[in-house]
Amino acid sequence: MNTWGKNFKITVFGESHGRCVGVVIDGCPPGIEIDLVKIQKEVDKRKPGQNLLTSSRKEEDKVEIFSGVFNNRSTGAPICLIVFNHDVDSAKYEKIKNLPRPGHADFPAFFKYHGFNDYRGGGIFSGRLTLAFVMAGAIAQNILEREKIKVLAYTKQIGKIKAGEKSIKDILKNREENLINCGDLEAARKMEKLIMKVKKEKDSVGGVIECCILNLPIGLGEPLFDNLESKIAQGIFSIPAIKGIEFGSGFFGATLKGSENNDQFYLRKGRIVTKTNNAGGILGGISNGAPLVFRVAVKPTPSIGKPQHTVDLVKKKARILQIEGRHDPCIVPRAVPVVEAITSLAIVDLWLEKKIKDIYA
Amino acid sequence: MNTWGKNFKITVFGESHGRCVGVVIDGCPPGIEIDLVKIQKEVDKRKPGQNLLTSSRKEEDKVEIFSGVFNNRSTGAPICLIVFNHDVDSAKYEKIKNLPRPGHADFPAFFKYHGFNDYRGGGIFSGRLTLAFVMAGAIAQNILEREKIKVLAYTKQIGKIKAGEKSIKDILKNREENLINCGDLEAARKMEKLIMKVKKEKDSVGGVIECCILNLPIGLGEPLFDNLESKIAQGIFSIPAIKGIEFGSGFFGATLKGSENNDQFYLRKGRIVTKTNNAGGILGGISNGAPLVFRVAVKPTPSIGKPQHTVDLVKKKARILQIEGRHDPCIVPRAVPVVEAITSLAIVDLWLEKKIKDIYA
Amino acid sequence: MNTWGKNFKITVFGESHGRCVGVVIDGCPPGIEIDLVKIQKEVDKRKPGQNLLTSSRKEEDKVEIFSGVFNNRSTGAPICLIVFNHDVDSAKYEKIKNLPRPGHADFPAFFKYHGFNDYRGGGIFSGRLTLAFVMAGAIAQNILEREKIKVLAYTKQIGKIKAGEKSIKDILKNREENLINCGDLEAARKMEKLIMKVKKEKDSVGGVIECCILNLPIGLGEPLFDNLESKIAQGIFSIPAIKGIEFGSGFFGATLKGSENNDQFYLRKGRIVTKTNNAGGILGGISNGAPLVFRVAVKPTPSIGKPQHTVDLVKKKARILQIEGRHDPCIVPRAVPVVEAITSLAIVDLWLEKKIKDIYA
Amino acid sequence: MNTWGKNFKITVFGESHGRCVGVVIDGCPPGIEIDLVKIQKEVDKRKPGQNLLTSSRKEEDKVEIFSGVFNNRSTGAPICLIVFNHDVDSAKYEKIKNLPRPGHADFPAFFKYHGFNDYRGGGIFSGRLTLAFVMAGAIAQNILEREKIKVLAYTKQIGKIKAGEKSIKDILKNREENLINCGDLEAARKMEKLIMKVKKEKDSVGGVIECCILNLPIGLGEPLFDNLESKIAQGIFSIPAIKGIEFGSGFFGATLKGSENNDQFYLRKGRIVTKTNNAGGILGGISNGAPLVFRVAVKPTPSIGKPQHTVDLVKKKARILQIEGRHDPCIVPRAVPVVEAITSLAIVDLWLEKKIKDIYA
Repeated sequence: MNTWGKNFKITVFGESHGRCVGVVIDGCPPGIEIDLVKIQKEVDKRKPGQNLLTSSRKEEDKVEIFSGVFNNRSTGAPICLIVFNHDVDSAKYEKIKNLPRPGHADFPAFFKYHGFNDYRGGGIFSGRLTLAFVMAGAIAQNILEREKIKVLAYTKQIGKIKAGEKSIKDILKNREENLINCGDLEAARKMEKLIMKVKKEKDSVGGVIECCILNLPIGLGEPLFDNLESKIAQGIFSIPAIKGIEFGSGFFGATLKGSENNDQFYLRKGRIVTKTNNAGGILGGISNGAPLVFRVAVKPTPSIGKPQHTVDLVKKKARILQIEGRHDPCIVPRAVPVVEAITSLAIVDLWLEKKIKDIYA
Repeated sequence: MNTWGKNFKITVFGESHGRCVGVVIDGCPPGIEIDLVKIQKEVDKRKPGQNLLTSSRKEEDKVEIFSGVFNNRSTGAPICLIVFNHDVDSAKYEKIKNLPRPGHADFPAFFKYHGFNDYRGGGIFSGRLTLAFVMAGAIAQNILEREKIKVLAYTKQIGKIKAGEKSIKDILKNREENLINCGDLEAARKMEKLIMKVKKEKDSVGGVIECCILNLPIGLGEPLFDNLESKIAQGIFSIPAIKGIEFGSGFFGATLKGSENNDQFYLRKGRIVTKTNNAGGILGGISNGAPLVFRVAVKPTPSIGKPQHTVDLVKKKARILQIEGRHDPCIVPRAVPVVEAITSLAIVDLWLEKKIKDIYA
Repeated sequence: MNTWGKNFKITVFGESHGRCVGVVIDGCPPGIEIDLVKIQKEVDKRKPGQNLLTSSRKEEDKVEIFSGVFNNRSTGAPICLIVFNHDVDSAKYEKIKNLPRPGHADFPAFFKYHGFNDYRGGGIFSGRLTLAFVMAGAIAQNILEREKIKVLAYTKQIGKIKAGEKSIKDILKNREENLINCGDLEAARKMEKLIMKVKKEKDSVGGVIECCILNLPIGLGEPLFDNLESKIAQGIFSIPAIKGIEFGSGFFGATLKGSENNDQFYLRKGRIVTKTNNAGGILGGISNGAPLVFRVAVKPTPSIGKPQHTVDLVKKKARILQIEGRHDPCIVPRAVPVVEAITSLAIVDLWLEKKIKDIYA
Repeated sequence: MNTWGKNFKITVFGESHGRCVGVVIDGCPPGIEIDLVKIQKEVDKRKPGQNLLTSSRKEEDKVEIFSGVFNNRSTGAPICLIVFNHDVDSAKYEKIKNLPRPGHADFPAFFKYHGFNDYRGGGIFSGRLTLAFVMAGAIAQNILEREKIKVLAYTKQIGKIKAGEKSIKDILKNREENLINCGDLEAARKMEKLIMKVKKEKDSVGGVIECCILNLPIGLGEPLFDNLESKIAQGIFSIPAIKGIEFGSGFFGATLKGSENNDQFYLRKGRIVTKTNNAGGILGGISNGAPLVFRVAVKPTPSIGKPQHTVDLVKKKARILQIEGRHDPCIVPRAVPVVEAITSLAIVDLWLEKKIKDIYA
């Protein structure tokens, strides 16, 4: 359902063209500084209308605190954060309400909800709901920062253009210097051109985001269903448009031999380390102290201006659909802060779990 | 934790070299036929020691019913199924108990549990725990069969050898005619040879499993955190050795344009269909009536006979480790029924959820 | 935590003197009529400032829909309802913020939250949070009405004054004709006098509420932890000021013999019935078709104008406290709709659960 | 369903006349000593056949560890404990399988499960399932003991005979010196006589158990649905035969004025204390440092030898039922360790929750 997490639990509500998007965060320990400016800064990173590469929907996306905060600190009661929708242009959805857009939830949602779903802008299935993840994630990041844990995502690939391997330091720096959160400036320029090109073609393009978690202590993740991979994957796939995830060497690792893929252990200055990180920082579903690394596949934005075949759901007649709306030619750059947010939520939840398990350590 | 599911909930317990592996299934509707022979048949598919390609551990893996069944039918009370361990050869684990095996949970588990974990055979982190998934999955499959829903997994790739595209009919037939659950007989022969080769080299190899769900009704999957992709991914990553998952066109789809990746809608004999299935049967996290298709990356078995570097956890000294145990040179074939089981569990849980939502349809 | 329910799940947030009180309802089937007028009517029943017997806090308590409703019907997405606080008079709480009020959560909350809790008006511990239960309960009642299930609560006792036994028909009628939701008009007059008397004394008084559920089908309630009694009790004790609950003959039944307390079975017009209802409609935690009956003990409002001993939490000095605020001399009448609401929520959750279990009936 | 708890989670399975009764405990921190002798000792306290006052069913009730324990300590993996049933005398249930016993779950269970339930001995509805609570509770008590928290239950009333007020010290001592776990030896003698008398009459009698928790730190219990009263009540009502619960002054307190019922605060040797404990150690659902006190109403055992009216469920004919089985004339004494167990489970779960909330204290 719409609640996620055991210890740091979020409940999400809202619609793309309804009144608002909101989130209730339950389980935040009391006394955490809740800095609205900081939350707003995270939210601004995924805001539409930032530049020519993103949707022209103009939303201020101003975060408002509805509960759980007193004197700028968490009280221990549930924290409710809400962003009101303003630039809602539902008229065009009214026209196509019986014409399911290819690649969107429209078609199955119509049948699932027997026609009662809010179809405007996709309703709860809209990517706009990820705003809730980012608001909650900003508070999770607050907690992780106290522990020096850093969650860092960046654009790894757009279409067939891949970013080169860069050091974390370079990625952190470069990411701020281009519009698409890429860690490789040269690749970023090519990616930006590609996005502008598909935009002109009234088309869209997909890509890959890589996420890296630094300074994660050993021992996060519970056996079986709340292991690190299960937890992160469950969260990540709640982001619309994500169609794949791989940890460490992932699908490539599946082509290797054990002797090639295993990360062997060595001693370095008294610490046990590995030289390779094919495991992506996770063994048996538990963090092993190496950087946690995963990549996610983002499909090309399904909303495109090109004419597409569809069928009128009520009249059962073939139709041609040209989507007019304001859509991102590539959702990858705006999905980067969302991947960071949802990952931070997963990590905080497991980190709090670890605190319980460490009670008699 | 070790419980999964909302409506059809499983709780797993046991260890590789402890007394047993067991599962409690809560939420099974009353009146379902519980056929021990059928459950046993599923369990036998993942049994070790079946042929030269698998581990030589000899376990009868006899399923026993401990509760919840009366007159061969589910009573509505929780169903407990247990398999006792017999061929437990812990001696070799005693020798290497402070020497973490590369690619295994040993290393992080030692720190996570402050040395209290049952290290023998990996304890709860052993692939043997998937036995519990298969027992529970067999009952889930019972329910799906009544609904004509068919979950079908098969080996798609071993190392760099890929199976060719085959029809579902051919896959179903071919899968039974080779030792590695592959749908392409020609590829299967090459895959078998590769596995025998790495076995001789005291090495191992990974691969890819594809899973297909047929006859799934439109509308399974809940928005946000219990959408089909989140739910399946959470379950799938609870299988040790899985390091990636992709739905439909997945990572390849991420390189495409929207106009290439979207599945457009057409009318065929009064039904709304798509010609392509890049979405893998899932739009907005909900089933759209097309076959649900996903692939998972299986890493090469980390236990290999080749000498590997490790470090004594207690003495903090570099060591060379040669793992003697009885291990699968390739875990892919035995993981196939496990993927089917865990997928069936996810589907039944969401199918029951749909029943609630359909109440006023 | 602040989420309750499995199938019809509510998440509550807000504070007495914060911005609002709100609730997110997750799991409401799509297509249910959501009539804001009706919800408002339920909310108005517990509104303060209605008459001389209640707190003089003046709140409009206007319910606003934030999500999940489209064209006046539930969409299947989470429904968020919010009431903004207006008549917030926090100044007096500032003065006594270190002086815990006897009988209130102030004292343990200060220590639990290490001083970070919102102490104004009790924060999340305020009875005002029950507003959220009533909003959500109104939607639950919508569903129950479709099934002809009727949840009916009424004042049974104020101080030592007990209402006489009346028929359901009389209770329904009489309840509307007095200010304290009592089913016995004669007793009601005495109760009203008593409440006015303690009010003048700057004191308060407690009482007992009885709740009756009519037309409940046989078979609601799950074995062990979600049985009817466990479920209702968990909900009921989330209402501040409730200190006891008993089902059927309850504490009196504990003094009886089995032959006196058992409800024997008889045939009446082809139906199996009992003549007595000492079980209160529940056997083994499951509804048995008889009216479900329980009573709850409501403690006297802890906020009283009389001087009381307290201790300054920071200065650790004895102090005399005279609570000025606007408080109910007796909370019982306003708790009646809250008991109905929380009971309705419990029943709907179990009723949806029954739908799953009945799948193969 | 059959799983309870958030951090210290139990899943219960088994039947009265099936193969076993079992429990899986998930969330027990690693490194806790698991002393089978101690668990067995707790289990023995509720064992049938101990003396003339209890059922003559002879069960060894030998606890067996199935998982989660290694070298006598918890590993962090789920702990499964099982007791096999031996003295199963199902023949008499076969005879009366269509004759619902008054006061038992038979009648609603038949309809709920559409005839598929295991009716022998009540199946999952049997009081024998409380064995699972006691096994798990023994491990919970282990944790509480480390924290010096003591959960103490005792017989307070049998029929109309009440125990006098005694000090905790006296109760602890006296409780061991009579067969019915009463803290008042004089009352105990009268109670024993009453039980023998109703036994001779082929009847039964109910009673009241009081439970007291000592040394509970301030701050246990979460706002709203996991407050101390909600949590304990939910657990307590999962014990068959419990029909009421009250905390502190409870139903009597509901007849008082606020000035009489409030526990005022005083300073004693630098600590803030109350002289009275009408709140039963709970304010706003949170522990306040005073002893937590509650009482539960236990109904008279419904199984009695006296002839009773019932109706054949299948033939729909009136019948007279004389229950032959082996039943307790009074279940109160054997329910005492069960109340302690379930309370300990509730407290440990909330105590672990508190640990999370205290992270930044």
